[in-house]
Amino acid sequence: MTPTPRARQTVGGLGESGILRILNRRFATVPAAGDWPEGTVGPGDDAAVVAAPDGRFVITTDAMAQDRDFRLHWPAVHGVMFDGHGFAGGYSTGWKAAAQNLSDINAMGGEPSGLLLALTMPPTTPVTWIDGLAAGLAGAVRHLGATHCRIVGGDLGSDDRITVAVTATGDLDGRPAVLRILPPAAHAVTVDLDLVLCGRAGWAAAGLDVLETPRGRLDALLRAAEQAEHVEEAEHGVRRLAALAAAAQLRPRPVLGAGRVAAEAGALAMMDVSDGVLKDAGRLATANGLRAELDPDWVRREASVLVPLARALDLENAQRTAERWVSAGGEDYGLLAALPGGAAVPAGFRRIGCLVAESGATAAWENGGSAGGWDHFTDR
Amino acid sequence: MTPTPRARQTVGGLGESGILRILNRRFATVPAAGDWPEGTVGPGDDAAVVAAPDGRFVITTDAMAQDRDFRLHWPAVHGVMFDGHGFAGGYSTGWKAAAQNLSDINAMGGEPSGLLLALTMPPTTPVTWIDGLAAGLAGAVRHLGATHCRIVGGDLGSDDRITVAVTATGDLDGRPAVLRILPPAAHAVTVDLDLVLCGRAGWAAAGLDVLETPRGRLDALLRAAEQAEHVEEAEHGVRRLAALAAAAQLRPRPVLGAGRVAAEAGALAMMDVSDGVLKDAGRLATANGLRAELDPDWVRREASVLVPLARALDLENAQRTAERWVSAGGEDYGLLAALPGGAAVPAGFRRIGCLVAESGATAAWENGGSAGGWDHFTDR
Repeated sequence: MTPTPRARQTVGGLGESGILRILNRRFATVPAAGDWPEGTVGPGDDAAVVAAPDGRFVITTDAMAQDRDFRLHWPAVHGVMFDGHGFAGGYSTGWKAAAQNLSDINAMGGEPSGLLLALTMPPTTPVTWIDGLAAGLAGAVRHLGATHCRIVGGDLGSDDRITVAVTATGDLDGRPAVLRILPPAAHAVTVDLDLVLCGRAGWAAAGLDVLETPRGRLDALLRAAEQAEHVEEAEHGVRRLAALAAAAQLRPRPVLGAGRVAAEAGALAMMDVSDGVLKDAGRLATANGLRAELDPDWVRREASVLVPLARALDLENAQRTAERWVSAGGEDYGLLAALPGGAAVPAGFRRIGCLVAESGATAAWENGGSAGGWDHFTDR
Repeated sequence: MTPTPRARQTVGGLGESGILRILNRRFATVPAAGDWPEGTVGPGDDAAVVAAPDGRFVITTDAMAQDRDFRLHWPAVHGVMFDGHGFAGGYSTGWKAAAQNLSDINAMGGEPSGLLLALTMPPTTPVTWIDGLAAGLAGAVRHLGATHCRIVGGDLGSDDRITVAVTATGDLDGRPAVLRILPPAAHAVTVDLDLVLCGRAGWAAAGLDVLETPRGRLDALLRAAEQAEHVEEAEHGVRRLAALAAAAQLRPRPVLGAGRVAAEAGALAMMDVSDGVLKDAGRLATANGLRAELDPDWVRREASVLVPLARALDLENAQRTAERWVSAGGEDYGLLAALPGGAAVPAGFRRIGCLVAESGATAAWENGGSAGGWDHFTDR
C-alpha cells in the first residue's frame, strides 16, 4: 500500500494522537513555548496550570464557525494575487482566531499569557488545513508580539463542519483593568470625553467584499480600474489596495500593547472594535448613559483611501460604500478608548469622535444601536 | 400582531442582547454569582478578570457538537419514563458541558473558579433550548458543589448546528497539581502502583444504548423484561436501571473534591475517565512507561448490576456487553488515581487494578490503546 500523499491526507486517517502531534509541532514555535515556570503545567494533561503573577488573570473566549466566520476557500484567494502569501488553507483562520482573542485581552489593558484551542471538525478535514490552522495561531502570537503567550491546552472533537473556539488569558501586572464602564469618578469630572482609536477601520469590511468576489470577475474589475482614466486613482494601485484589504480581513492586526499604553495615558473606558466603529462606539456610549458622535471628517478621511477600491469593485456610490466600510465594518480589531476631553492623544491613537451626554445636540453620526454593524442573529 | 408563544420563539427573533439576557438570568443562580472580589471583573466586557489567589490557575476547554456529543432530541427521552425529569431540551447539554470541564479541573486537584461558554447556533434554535442550556450549566455548578465557580464570560455566534465550547478555570490553593505523569521520585520508590477510581464506570455507556433505542421499542423491551421469568432480575428493576443509566449519560456527576482528597492521600498521578477506563488507564500507564492491568473481578462486579439491563435491551451476550460498558464506556467522568502499591484507598475510591512495569506478566486486561474506548476521528 502506498502512503497517501500529504496534500490529500485527512484528519480521519490520523486519529487524535496524530492530530495532536501536528498541532503541537506548530505550537512549539511561539516565543514562550519552551518556558514553563516552576509550578505551571503545559498542555497534554487534564488541564494546564498557568502563572498569574499578580493573583488575577484576564480571560475571554470566541468561537468561529465555518462559512459564517471563515471559509475553507475564498473565491478571490486562489490565483496570482494572493499566491505565496499563505492566505489559503487554515492559516488565516488560525491567525484570526488568535488575533481576535488577543485583542480582547489587550482591550482590558492586559498582556496575553495563554491560548486554548477547542476544535471540532469532520474526519474529511485535510491535514494541511489543520496544520495551517495551528501555524496561523502560532504565527499571530509571534507576529503580533505576544511574547509571553503560550498555547496551554485544547480539545478535539468531530462535527460536520469546522468550529474553532479559542480562549485567551492575560496578565494585568498589578494594574486595574480598563472596562467599558467608566469609573464612577469619571462621570463627575468630565463633561465630554474624547473617543480615540488605535488601528484602522473599514479595511476588513472592504476585504470581505474583495474576497467574496469571484476570482475571474475580480481580475476583470481590477484590470478595468487600472486602465481607467482616473489616473490619480490608478496611482493608488487598486490591486495593491485590494490585496491589503483582503489581508486586513484574513489577518487582522490588533496592536497589542496599545491597551496598556492607553491605560497609562489615562484611558477611562476601553473596548476593541469587532462589530464596527459605529456599533461599538454606541455600545461604549450606552454602557455609560452617553451618546457617541463620530467625527464626520475622520470618517471621510479614513474612507478616502478606500474609495478607489469601492469604485473598482463597481459598488454603488463608492464614497458612501467606503464610508460605510469605515463606520459600520467590523473585524479590524482596532482599540477604542475614551479619554477626558482635550487630553493628549496617546501614541498610535487618533481622535475619531466623542462621547456626549445623552441630552446633547444631535450629530451626523449617531448612536450605533440600529445604525449599522453586526449582530449574529438578526443579520444587521 | 400577537406575540410568538415562548415555546416556539427562536433565538433569531431575539438578537444577541436578548439571548444574553436569558443566559445571564440563569447564570445568576450559581452560588458565587453575586460575589466578585475587588479587582475582578464579571462578564459583559471584552474579557473578565478572575482571582487566582495563589498566583496560578488551572484551565481546560472542551467543545461539544450537536449530533456528535449531544442530541437535541433523544429517541427514548420523550415519554412517560423521563418526563418531569428535565432531560429533554438543552438542560442536559449544559449540564454535561459544565460537568466534563469541572471534572478536568478536579482531576488536577483543583477547585473550580470559573466557566466560559462559547456558543454557536442557528437562528432557528428554540429560545427554550438555550434557556435550558444555561439552566443546565448553572445547575451542574450548583448541584455538583462548585461553590466558588462563577460564569465569567462567553461568546455567541451563528452556525448551521449547535456547538457548545466551555472553558473552566480553577484554583490549587497553593498545592502542586497532580499530573498524569508520575513525579520523578515515584519511579524510584514504587514498583507497582495501585489504580483507584472514584465514581462509576459503564453507566453512561449503558445510558447511551438506552437513549438511542426508539421509545416504542424500549418500552416493549422493558415490559418484556419485567414480565420475564428471571424473577431475581425483575427485582433489580430494569426500568429503574434504564432511567439511572440514561441519567448517567445525560447528567454525569464527577465527584468534585475527590481530586483534592486523592492528592492529600498521596495520589502520584491522576486523570479523569472520559474515554473509558481501559483506554484512559492505558494512557496513564503509557505516559509513564508502564502497563495498566484492570482487576477482572472489579470489572465483573461493576458489570453485574448492569447485566439485567443489557439482557433487557436484547443486546448480544449480556455479560460481555455489560463488561464492555464498564471497561470501554466513556463519559462517566470518574476520577482515576495511581497510589503507591498497598497504600490506603482514599474515601470514595475503590481499587480497580494496578500499573506495572511494561515487562511484567501479561494479564487479562491489557493496555487500552487498541482494546476499546473512544477516539473522535477513528471511531473506536
